[in-house]
Amino acid sequence: MITDTLIEKIRATKNPTCVGLDTAIDYLPENLQKRCKTPKDAAKAIVEFNFNVIDSIKDIVPSVKVQVAYYEMLGTHGMEAFYTTLCAAKAAGLVVIADCKRNDIGSTAGCYSSAFLGKTKLAEKEFEAFPSDFLTVNAYLGVDGIEPFLKDCKENDKGIFVLVKTSNPSSGQLQNRKFENGETLFETMGALVKEWGKDSIGKFGYSCVGAVVGATHSDEAKILRGKLPHTLFLIPGYGAQGGKADDLTVCFDKNGNGGIVNNSRGILCAYKTDKYKGLDYAAAARAASIDMQADIAGALKRAGKAL
Amino acid sequence: MITDTLIEKIRATKNPTCVGLDTAIDYLPENLQKRCKTPKDAAKAIVEFNFNVIDSIKDIVPSVKVQVAYYEMLGTHGMEAFYTTLCAAKAAGLVVIADCKRNDIGSTAGCYSSAFLGKTKLAEKEFEAFPSDFLTVNAYLGVDGIEPFLKDCKENDKGIFVLVKTSNPSSGQLQNRKFENGETLFETMGALVKEWGKDSIGKFGYSCVGAVVGATHSDEAKILRGKLPHTLFLIPGYGAQGGKADDLTVCFDKNGNGGIVNNSRGILCAYKTDKYKGLDYAAAARAASIDMQADIAGALKRAGKAL
Repeated sequence: MITDTLIEKIRATKNPTCVGLDTAIDYLPENLQKRCKTPKDAAKAIVEFNFNVIDSIKDIVPSVKVQVAYYEMLGTHGMEAFYTTLCAAKAAGLVVIADCKRNDIGSTAGCYSSAFLGKTKLAEKEFEAFPSDFLTVNAYLGVDGIEPFLKDCKENDKGIFVLVKTSNPSSGQLQNRKFENGETLFETMGALVKEWGKDSIGKFGYSCVGAVVGATHSDEAKILRGKLPHTLFLIPGYGAQGGKADDLTVCFDKNGNGGIVNNSRGILCAYKTDKYKGLDYAAAARAASIDMQADIAGALKRAGKAL
Repeated sequence: MITDTLIEKIRATKNPTCVGLDTAIDYLPENLQKRCKTPKDAAKAIVEFNFNVIDSIKDIVPSVKVQVAYYEMLGTHGMEAFYTTLCAAKAAGLVVIADCKRNDIGSTAGCYSSAFLGKTKLAEKEFEAFPSDFLTVNAYLGVDGIEPFLKDCKENDKGIFVLVKTSNPSSGQLQNRKFENGETLFETMGALVKEWGKDSIGKFGYSCVGAVVGATHSDEAKILRGKLPHTLFLIPGYGAQGGKADDLTVCFDKNGNGGIVNNSRGILCAYKTDKYKGLDYAAAARAASIDMQADIAGALKRAGKAL
């Protein structure tokens, strides 16, 4: 069961984090950036960068999160790089989270689900378009836009993370508004996530239907952790967005389970900072991953939630 | 200004509709389906189908809406078919709506916006990844996930349609919930859309920031039309989903402006129905488009809103 697999990897590495492969062209070192003259060349440079980062962190990090927007902006070649990155991460033994925030009415959500979590049927065979273990989704459309994903989770042992309380500054504009019953939109969304996941709870107590809960909003995260004891949180917003390790321990249970913290820029661009001066980008990504592990493990220990 | 261009085309054709190129493999005629042995072959078959449909309807329909999920499920070859379809529709003189419902935090939304509405900067030049006139977006994350799209709308004369009240059966699960002030989520989202579009109102009175409002929910559509006089509605749900012409006239103003109604299956699969028996798929798509135009124009006339 994929959520168990992810938690086992987290426990084995004592590292509840994922490296975000949001590989923007300007994250690349100068020699690779110079090669980005055509979309095809840019896609190749990004794949090279990702391969080296994956190779450098694969034994100390349980998972990667690949943000598709950075690949879509490179067109069809970018989507090839996205595909290749997903496959390389999987081959390296990492749990692969496709961060695509897909959403639509049921029939169309079924297509998205086939693309990322299921299989596409052709005349004589079926294939996986963008093979992923988890997909992020947006549930503004309600349950019938989520059911196709739940079906593929069940049939193919996959998982989803539903946007509940996002990490961005304006997330409260809608998500923190209170409904007539006094519950906020993010709490209401959380309750749906709980319901959708109640039949798929694994041995660590966590369902294959997770929630995106930003590290930048610890009050909301605390409320959600209390209400959703079986929901794994994918936690963006650490590092560059301002989320601190001590603030995000509220996302975890007493055993140190229940959360996976993403860091993108802080890992991919570590080589650009004074702290990791002299290291190439792959070595700096590893060093920054080790430091992030220590930062979060330390905070969890201080909170009495050591892994 | 792109919203004016779209409305001019609607008025010239007296046809406030778009053909939805949600080209599923099983929409294809048997001879094309048989060719779909590999993702590449399937993508080629879909492009052939789309080209023929576009060629058949380009003089009587103002716009097409291309649903990316049907292409993503065919992987990288599917995304090439998506790109080729966007370009072919544009070359045929149609206004192109990319139906992708993209959403993310600001920096990532910027990548999506570059992909569909803007340009991606490479080392020595810039290019358009998936060139579109309009993009559908989901604003669950609030304004800072929308601003990058607004910037590209302004700089590159593009438009967006924000999900407000979707056409699916469970859309009310969240969207119709009332906040403490008595306003529903869809009304609150509508008010944001109004605010985001207030500085980009064209000569027909409509902004480049439109709203997705399902044909299947005429009570909600009526409320929204009253509150959002400058918001163009992209109206899915006609036909296969159950929306009727007389129900969706509430989306239009007294001059017959303000809405564009999508039909996908009803046009693409017309050739499979008794009504258009004997016609090939392209001819049937044209005949069904003509009938849809008459159906909606008739309903608008009955409602005193003739184009």
